[in-house]
Amino acid sequence: MAAPTLDFWFDFASTYSYPAAMRIRALAGEAGVGLNFRPFLLGPIFKSQGWDTSPFNLYPLKGHYMWRDLERICTDLSLPLRRPEPFPQQSLLAARVALVGLGEASHEPWGEEFCVAVYRAQFAHGRRIDDAAVIGDILEGLGVPAAPVIAAAGSDDNKMRLRATTEEAQRRGLFGAPTFTTCDGELFWGNDRLERALLWAQRDR
Amino acid sequence: MAAPTLDFWFDFASTYSYPAAMRIRALAGEAGVGLNFRPFLLGPIFKSQGWDTSPFNLYPLKGHYMWRDLERICTDLSLPLRRPEPFPQQSLLAARVALVGLGEASHEPWGEEFCVAVYRAQFAHGRRIDDAAVIGDILEGLGVPAAPVIAAAGSDDNKMRLRATTEEAQRRGLFGAPTFTTCDGELFWGNDRLERALLWAQRDR
Repeated sequence: MAAPTLDFWFDFASTYSYPAAMRIRALAGEAGVGLNFRPFLLGPIFKSQGWDTSPFNLYPLKGHYMWRDLERICTDLSLPLRRPEPFPQQSLLAARVALVGLGEASHEPWGEEFCVAVYRAQFAHGRRIDDAAVIGDILEGLGVPAAPVIAAAGSDDNKMRLRATTEEAQRRGLFGAPTFTTCDGELFWGNDRLERALLWAQRDR
Repeated sequence: MAAPTLDFWFDFASTYSYPAAMRIRALAGEAGVGLNFRPFLLGPIFKSQGWDTSPFNLYPLKGHYMWRDLERICTDLSLPLRRPEPFPQQSLLAARVALVGLGEASHEPWGEEFCVAVYRAQFAHGRRIDDAAVIGDILEGLGVPAAPVIAAAGSDDNKMRLRATTEEAQRRGLFGAPTFTTCDGELFWGNDRLERALLWAQRDR
């Protein structure tokens, strides 16, 4: 019998993915659920809905609410919050680097730590995650040599992997982040669905 | 010191307002928080965002997810769920009748019960809430004579009250339902924020 697992889908620019990323490993550990971190790009999915930026920018009422809601959530979790400028950040570079660390073949021990550190840099410290120097700092902070990893992130193979992941997200019907998917095809959208998704995964063995 | 209260804003066509309406009175009672039921119309608010129907129809991926998510939520709460046809239902009549029952001057004891019964008729039994016969049945089921109430619902005064309520919702920055607002101006959107809103209201005395 396979251990229960949950796929955690996120775009690094996604605001509600920040608290999800900061919580998910501890909660999954308590629940005995394994995790697959699945960074992908929301941009192409938004574009297919006719949006050229975040819906939080397109619909200012919703955007205004989201920042206040996120502030309350972070306060409840004792997480610092700084609003990154500009918003949304360009998440392509971070996603490509994360895929190097999360690679199935070479499963590097720093992949998940890198993802968490990118969220922290962006939303706790307000740093720009589209800046290769910032990404390099994050890698070096994890004891990972930045130059070869950033080079690997830009390889054609790795670019294709991110494209394939984003296409898989589209096929699965994802439309936002964070999203959690179970082995039996159930989809849960939003940081506020994380606990429910873990319960589902526990049942799904 | 005033007792803590929470305003519960809903459009009768709103899907996630169904579980909220079925839960809120018991949860508010346990929390010692008073409630104001505030039926309003989302239509004019959606229109101001350029939408001519529910976003769940405009964005099919989100709509598909919403129905599945609602199904899981209702299963967890042991609430029956039938998808109403068409969706969204026209909620104008139900909102006007509810305002008669919830009227400040003549606070009728059936106002909240009527709201809950409309949600049950629509989402548990799949009945059409734009049908005066259905609304009449619901009123009679509560021991309320339907004809005079439906007549009062159509009075100019009552129509103006619903318009004023919807304008107040817009001024407060509401963009969806259910929404919960506290006396100190905090806004919580979504059935999944009900517990958090009640905690906030308890603190806000």
